[in-house]
Amino acid sequence: MQKTLSYETPGRGTLDITADINRELAAAALTSGLCHVFIRHTSASLMICENADPCVRADVERWLQQAVHDGDPMFEHDMEGDDDMSGHIRSIFTGMDLTVPITAGQLNLGVWQGIYLYEHRYRGRRREIVITTVAAG
Amino acid sequence: MQKTLSYETPGRGTLDITADINRELAAAALTSGLCHVFIRHTSASLMICENADPCVRADVERWLQQAVHDGDPMFEHDMEGDDDMSGHIRSIFTGMDLTVPITAGQLNLGVWQGIYLYEHRYRGRRREIVITTVAAG
Amino acid sequence: MQKTLSYETPGRGTLDITADINRELAAAALTSGLCHVFIRHTSASLMICENADPCVRADVERWLQQAVHDGDPMFEHDMEGDDDMSGHIRSIFTGMDLTVPITAGQLNLGVWQGIYLYEHRYRGRRREIVITTVAAG
Repeated sequence: MQKTLSYETPGRGTLDITADINRELAAAALTSGLCHVFIRHTSASLMICENADPCVRADVERWLQQAVHDGDPMFEHDMEGDDDMSGHIRSIFTGMDLTVPITAGQLNLGVWQGIYLYEHRYRGRRREIVITTVAAG
Repeated sequence: MQKTLSYETPGRGTLDITADINRELAAAALTSGLCHVFIRHTSASLMICENADPCVRADVERWLQQAVHDGDPMFEHDMEGDDDMSGHIRSIFTGMDLTVPITAGQLNLGVWQGIYLYEHRYRGRRREIVITTVAAG
Repeated sequence: MQKTLSYETPGRGTLDITADINRELAAAALTSGLCHVFIRHTSASLMICENADPCVRADVERWLQQAVHDGDPMFEHDMEGDDDMSGHIRSIFTGMDLTVPITAGQLNLGVWQGIYLYEHRYRGRRREIVITTVAAG
């Protein structure tokens, strides 16, 4: 199974896409294997994060703003604004691909784990992810 | 093949799990493919790291403590203590899933590479990893 | 399909290996699935990054030099020089494995995404990557 999903992000921040992926898995009917998720961009990323307290994602955002300064004067690549180059580094930090085991036809996540699409640009954009499943063997 | 392994971590620090994974691969008898390892938690992670000099892991730990301050006052999520929010960010940094090629039935790691379970909480906990193999094709 | 490629890196910096991987995929003739790339080292890594403006990779390098100081006096592991321990941390940051969907026989990257081998040591070295494909299912 391979499927592309599109999202219109509302701007910088995280979007929980766990249920969307599980919905695709239900249609795929693969008992045991791997689910790969890929984002086709370099200033938005994918992140596994604690899913119970929204403050965790707010704290990740606060930490990222301190670790990678928007509009850092040392950056040469700034044509698209202060969130351009920082968006690239934040995407490398969190990652653009992830793989989760499929067990009994569903994502085998821990009870506190969610999968988030992380938009790093200030303004929202159309973002595409590609979901691919492979059977265990 | 898909298998869950449990570990009781002794507290913050790294545990070499390379041999455990190779033992499961020996039982699986898959010549060529991929071995995926996933940790079902958000304050413990998986890391490929130099395996010869224990100082390397000690230096990674030192660097992480400077990069992500335990008990940073800017963190809102602090109910479980100073190592709670920093544990989440450290886990995102090192990653919760990794995939290694299987060649001739074993992990095709470089000679200096080991796979480590990284506990980020001060106190030890029970941690589960899921190993899944898929055949090349 | 599983294939090992070797590179002689010219020293610290990035090498675009996207076309090399697509060339191997053309030979493999797999329509839909996953392409896994793995680097068998701990001071060189793999990175998906913006591929249009070389300043982006120069800015990533600048940021890494500020985030992980070469020759940081707190590092104990320094036998091979100032770029030894920082190389290990930079490799963990960017990652040693990545997986990209295969669609219509080619890497299904976004239009601005390239795959880079990132050498973190000052002096060039021989580096090996392992490419493995698996079929969707």
